[in-house]
Amino acid sequence: MSGHDAVDVIRAKRDGGRLSDGQIDWVLDAYTRGEVADEQMSALAMAILLQGMDRREIARWTGAMIASGQRLDFESANLGRPTADKHSTGGVGDKITLPLAPLVAACGVAVPQLSGRGLGHTGGTLDKLESIPGWRAELTYEQIVEQLRSSGGVICAATGEIAPADRKLYALRDVTGTVESIPLIASSIMSKKIAEGTAALVLDVKVGSGAFMKNVGDASELARTMVELGTDAGVRTVALLTQMEVPLGRTAGNALEVAESVRVLSGGGPADVVELTLALAREMLAAAGVTGVDPAEKLDDGSAMDVWRAMISAQGGDPAAPLPTAAETHVVVAPEAGYVTSMDAYAVGVAAWRLGAGRARQGDAVSAGAGVVMHAKPGDRVQRGDPIFSLHTDEATRFERALDVLNGQWGIGPDAPEPMPLILGRIDSQGL
Amino acid sequence: MSGHDAVDVIRAKRDGGRLSDGQIDWVLDAYTRGEVADEQMSALAMAILLQGMDRREIARWTGAMIASGQRLDFESANLGRPTADKHSTGGVGDKITLPLAPLVAACGVAVPQLSGRGLGHTGGTLDKLESIPGWRAELTYEQIVEQLRSSGGVICAATGEIAPADRKLYALRDVTGTVESIPLIASSIMSKKIAEGTAALVLDVKVGSGAFMKNVGDASELARTMVELGTDAGVRTVALLTQMEVPLGRTAGNALEVAESVRVLSGGGPADVVELTLALAREMLAAAGVTGVDPAEKLDDGSAMDVWRAMISAQGGDPAAPLPTAAETHVVVAPEAGYVTSMDAYAVGVAAWRLGAGRARQGDAVSAGAGVVMHAKPGDRVQRGDPIFSLHTDEATRFERALDVLNGQWGIGPDAPEPMPLILGRIDSQGL
Repeated sequence: MSGHDAVDVIRAKRDGGRLSDGQIDWVLDAYTRGEVADEQMSALAMAILLQGMDRREIARWTGAMIASGQRLDFESANLGRPTADKHSTGGVGDKITLPLAPLVAACGVAVPQLSGRGLGHTGGTLDKLESIPGWRAELTYEQIVEQLRSSGGVICAATGEIAPADRKLYALRDVTGTVESIPLIASSIMSKKIAEGTAALVLDVKVGSGAFMKNVGDASELARTMVELGTDAGVRTVALLTQMEVPLGRTAGNALEVAESVRVLSGGGPADVVELTLALAREMLAAAGVTGVDPAEKLDDGSAMDVWRAMISAQGGDPAAPLPTAAETHVVVAPEAGYVTSMDAYAVGVAAWRLGAGRARQGDAVSAGAGVVMHAKPGDRVQRGDPIFSLHTDEATRFERALDVLNGQWGIGPDAPEPMPLILGRIDSQGL
Repeated sequence: MSGHDAVDVIRAKRDGGRLSDGQIDWVLDAYTRGEVADEQMSALAMAILLQGMDRREIARWTGAMIASGQRLDFESANLGRPTADKHSTGGVGDKITLPLAPLVAACGVAVPQLSGRGLGHTGGTLDKLESIPGWRAELTYEQIVEQLRSSGGVICAATGEIAPADRKLYALRDVTGTVESIPLIASSIMSKKIAEGTAALVLDVKVGSGAFMKNVGDASELARTMVELGTDAGVRTVALLTQMEVPLGRTAGNALEVAESVRVLSGGGPADVVELTLALAREMLAAAGVTGVDPAEKLDDGSAMDVWRAMISAQGGDPAAPLPTAAETHVVVAPEAGYVTSMDAYAVGVAAWRLGAGRARQGDAVSAGAGVVMHAKPGDRVQRGDPIFSLHTDEATRFERALDVLNGQWGIGPDAPEPMPLILGRIDSQGL
């Protein structure tokens, strides 16, 4: 007898109380073991969403999810260099992990970047990399350590042993309308990141139409909650709030984003992708305690590209192989001359998804070549007939619904729009 | 494609919106069919509990639960007399249905009293009647009609075809901490009662420690919600709010309560049971449109007892057979002289339950003879050594836990307590 009962725990939170450490430990363990049923956990998740959890409850909840599985330990692996990790809450065109991991590795930090697949309108890092012929996402812990020694960076699938309670709970929340809870989002992200064993963590919390958090207030609360969780767990954690009203870079789609990332690693690429990659790289270096290295130089001198090639090769990929392209292309042109005034990130994300770049359900296949190229972005001056978007898909029947969602979600006007800052704020353990 | 999605419905209520008629119809139908999963419905139930439903939503929710099954129709059965039904929200020692149904039938009203089994600290009407040797609860609709013609009254199990959505949802709410929602309680009760086809309905809404509703405010809201639902569905509905701080009558337990009911039908019995039986009978007669009949006379002249005997016999029971008694008895006596000042209904209910009168889980067997006899009640004067409670059980090991729960939950003092009114309020379609 544990002395706990699922209905008592649910009622305590439902009635606005705080859950005890014992209740939290018990309910997550019993849920992982199947003793607490899905219908009980979903009722509890809804009560948490509506009644909230305080800092101590969130920390205990996160700890209990970590305790449900394996905890990786790169300290004992004696890598000879500090570790740092980055997590983005997800945005449209957010390929930053691809250039960032090799760049930071080139600066002398070990980057064990355990990543996920996409669901809905935001793409997944693994889906993007899998468009590279031969590249494989699944590695064992031993392979991860070996690759961190050989190339300094690794981007791979999270192992099944990391926070199984979170995996089970996340799938449940997805079908029960209980995703949008800051305590549950924060504990889900941080349980995985803490269990993955990094000593330093930089969070990229997206804000805007293409992000989960639509306004700076919610994003700040989420960022602060995650920074507190990381700090309390001994991980040096910092968060940037970054703009996601318009897509990041010029591409949204798997192979399209890999190609853009390679351009960044070659010293080119869109200015916003370069700016955010460098900003996050500097935060990761600082959090890892590495000073006196300028990541911009590592892009210029080709050393970040060298690490990229080593990372891709180590996981079976051919970094020189041509990337897949989609069979069908449709170009949307400017109906008049002027400035591009807006381009809604959510609409572009959904368009890429409808073109085949994303999946509707876990386990669906994605198209490597599908997606959206943005030839112009807000602030750019265009002439009538200039291309604005190229839509790429394997099936021409998909164009119509992609065009539907873009319709009215971008604009051209006589005046240049106010420039939008990319980095909206920074939160560390000292606060905003 | 219905065009509906469970997550959209959950999110709408979660965010404080009102559910459309189409959403309610769809979600209850899809849940009954198994298309909406238990974990989705429990999240929705929690959102309803915390965000509420307005009058229109509750009415539609109730209607959709009725539509999930069969609807009985006693109008077309041409019974030659009006129908009236009574429902109690459940209390300790609440055996009122047993004398009430034959009494009202003796006054010329058909009483189709579809009832349930007990769960937890309140007893079930069917469990009580099943202590009568030979009596059986299960009847078909045709048998119900036949018995209404022959004896005027019937107390039997609800058929499986009545509101299956409610049956499924009730079992789910029981394990997910989502019972205590006035919209869900009201719609659960009223969907069954409306589907059972009565033209008039009297509700006995209990208030106090032994009841579901602990205060008059909550009980009034529940009563008003149910009266509105009944009225909107064309059922003449009235509710009494009645006191449940102390148990009703002098017994709590299955055969013990049958014996007490028979004493009432014989013209005797405890004053509170007689008072409430007559008050509810008068309300049922008024709601059924029957005037000029005094139910007190039908107790005095034995005609209510005649109907009781006919009802029991028609369902295979022997109304003259001795009732089962429990093997073991323990008497609790007054430690000093004085007035009984308090006797907590919830404690007495739990004691009877622990003695074997109730069940912890659906499907458990109950003991016919187990329960509590109250030899004295608040306001009674006792001498030191006078019996206060007799505890009855089939297993002497059960005494300890029953005594534990009674300990400190009753008292003796030098002064008589303030008398407590039994009937606290009345709510009809015109309001309080």
